[in-house]
Amino acid sequence: MRPSAIREILQLTEQPQIISFAGGLPDPALFPVEALAAAFAAAIVRDAGALQYGVTEGHAPLREWIAARLGCPGVGTAQVAIVTGSQQGLDLLGRVLLDPGDAVLVERPTYLGAAQAFAWQQPRLCGLDCDEEGPLPAAVAEAAAAAQPKLLYLMPNFQNPAGRTIGLRRRRALVEVAARCRLLLVEDDPYGELRYEGEPLPSLLRLGAEAGAPVVHLGTFSKTLAPGLRLGFVATTLPLLRELNVAKQAACLHVSTVIQHAVARLLNGDFDLEAHLRRLRAAYGARRDAMDGALRAAFPEGLRWTRPQGGTFLWAEVAGREVAPWFRAALDRGVAFVPGDDFFADGRPSPAVRLNFSNSDPSRIADGVLRLRRAWDGLA
Amino acid sequence: MRPSAIREILQLTEQPQIISFAGGLPDPALFPVEALAAAFAAAIVRDAGALQYGVTEGHAPLREWIAARLGCPGVGTAQVAIVTGSQQGLDLLGRVLLDPGDAVLVERPTYLGAAQAFAWQQPRLCGLDCDEEGPLPAAVAEAAAAAQPKLLYLMPNFQNPAGRTIGLRRRRALVEVAARCRLLLVEDDPYGELRYEGEPLPSLLRLGAEAGAPVVHLGTFSKTLAPGLRLGFVATTLPLLRELNVAKQAACLHVSTVIQHAVARLLNGDFDLEAHLRRLRAAYGARRDAMDGALRAAFPEGLRWTRPQGGTFLWAEVAGREVAPWFRAALDRGVAFVPGDDFFADGRPSPAVRLNFSNSDPSRIADGVLRLRRAWDGLA
Repeated sequence: MRPSAIREILQLTEQPQIISFAGGLPDPALFPVEALAAAFAAAIVRDAGALQYGVTEGHAPLREWIAARLGCPGVGTAQVAIVTGSQQGLDLLGRVLLDPGDAVLVERPTYLGAAQAFAWQQPRLCGLDCDEEGPLPAAVAEAAAAAQPKLLYLMPNFQNPAGRTIGLRRRRALVEVAARCRLLLVEDDPYGELRYEGEPLPSLLRLGAEAGAPVVHLGTFSKTLAPGLRLGFVATTLPLLRELNVAKQAACLHVSTVIQHAVARLLNGDFDLEAHLRRLRAAYGARRDAMDGALRAAFPEGLRWTRPQGGTFLWAEVAGREVAPWFRAALDRGVAFVPGDDFFADGRPSPAVRLNFSNSDPSRIADGVLRLRRAWDGLA
Repeated sequence: MRPSAIREILQLTEQPQIISFAGGLPDPALFPVEALAAAFAAAIVRDAGALQYGVTEGHAPLREWIAARLGCPGVGTAQVAIVTGSQQGLDLLGRVLLDPGDAVLVERPTYLGAAQAFAWQQPRLCGLDCDEEGPLPAAVAEAAAAAQPKLLYLMPNFQNPAGRTIGLRRRRALVEVAARCRLLLVEDDPYGELRYEGEPLPSLLRLGAEAGAPVVHLGTFSKTLAPGLRLGFVATTLPLLRELNVAKQAACLHVSTVIQHAVARLLNGDFDLEAHLRRLRAAYGARRDAMDGALRAAFPEGLRWTRPQGGTFLWAEVAGREVAPWFRAALDRGVAFVPGDDFFADGRPSPAVRLNFSNSDPSRIADGVLRLRRAWDGLA
């Protein structure tokens, strides 16, 4: 297994003079710094268990808060397990569910970190052709019959990298296919709280509960609070959390109790999460608009993208030219992005780029897009 | 893979009226609570990277401190990787080094968590017969020739569960065998700083560097600061940290930057670590003495143990009777321990019990040992 190509690009682009649309970093200026500092200090000084070994499944008040937030029938505290970011959730699911050679259905393109986590079990990743809403239910049914996959991995909200969202009707259709084929849906939802327009849609977890489809839901506090916490969760009504926790115990015993107690205190205390989320949505929404607008102005032709309803990424398909020379020319002009090839877990890439808008302010975004255009023109 | 038998016993013994010698918990009264609370608050408020995504190998100032503390020629910052407790170090080493069916040499008895971590790779665990200093070098050489093992897993200081310490001469001999057989030594050293008598001995990492033997060293802050941090490290001059970090990236991206920045601030700030360690050694050393003394008084015959020079466990071999009925009779009298069978990773257990002395004060230890004696007498 090779190190992530993205990490290597990120190292190239760490210099502050580079305008980076490459990473997926949230803006540290939007972290709830004071509230977190107070929550950690209080948890350490006041909570008996905050520094001691803890239980593998996680701190009960945190799991209870998460279950209430998910608001899904049948999902209580016992249906939630705490993990070291959703990345560990993916890794543990791979360990528990996959054997070498097992087929796994993924979107085209898909989240690279999931492909990396699953790769340890040496599965066959089968890419599903997608429209602007994700996989077509008929394609899923066909692939399920042909490949006997163990699971279908989906990111339904503002997908990384494609920025697309699976609509309600499509969600229902996918859940119905999953129920019919007894196909396990893995719903990875890091960005769901970062919606900038339209109404929130019911999770696959909830729709699965209604339709009798097996679903495992992954969530994280990386985008809502701070990624440095490395705090995520797995929620499911399926009887696999016990196995997952046994795997977790062997992997790291449990997630830091300090982190869990501090975040439980924050969420159950007087921190105004809704106001914080409104602030995030306003700031990131403005950046999404800045990037969308700058691209429209700079690229009336040549690129095609769907304006993302939320999240942190915009995916632009490139018509009529190769990505690699553009990437190098853009770097020469001080702006970076991630070429799309690596997000096609089964190969067969189509030319596209992933652009992050969460870690640059609107004027920097406008400047970066102009440079992208100049780099593009320089190649013509 | 079944859940740890020890965890199940621990759940049985969580009631406060039980005197538990079963777990391996440090005493929360000895955690540096105020210093940690201040370090977390300062790191969160003042350090730019404390809440953001970080690099997989870990926070450089923390790695630098660890390298300096190890004080081993050739081991600098680049030879140290941060992990989620040494448990994750064991898990990642297993992933990177082991294939199904590979032989792994372990002590008899050995640390159960290592056996659990390695178990995911389905190795053959081969137990080495040990005297009061650990494995005999001749036995290692013989097993190395017979089984072609990938590694030898050792806990040289105050081993969990046996409490024994490998002396200097034996360390040199084991390192020499390892150099001759090109056998990788995995040195797990969670308790090294908790020495209550005698001089600290050079690590296998250092002796290996001198003798040209391949060694990977695992360390942790669980026993010196607090286990709830879930903060450990892997140190080696071997070129396997890159692979280990690739595995770590897929497993969880990186250890919480909050934790890493806070502990780096604590260790590099005005916290007096040496005074703190003296306090720990005085308190735990007194508990070791209390248990050793109470056992001598209560069991002039029937049990055989070596007084541990440090750590948190005492291992008592049981002569002439079975452990299981004693365990049940002891529980009936409100005192718990861990029967030794599960620590023999390759089966073939010999009757023994593991007794923890770090989580009960001396008078509770004396009371617990008296109950153990009454339970013993009730079976006669």
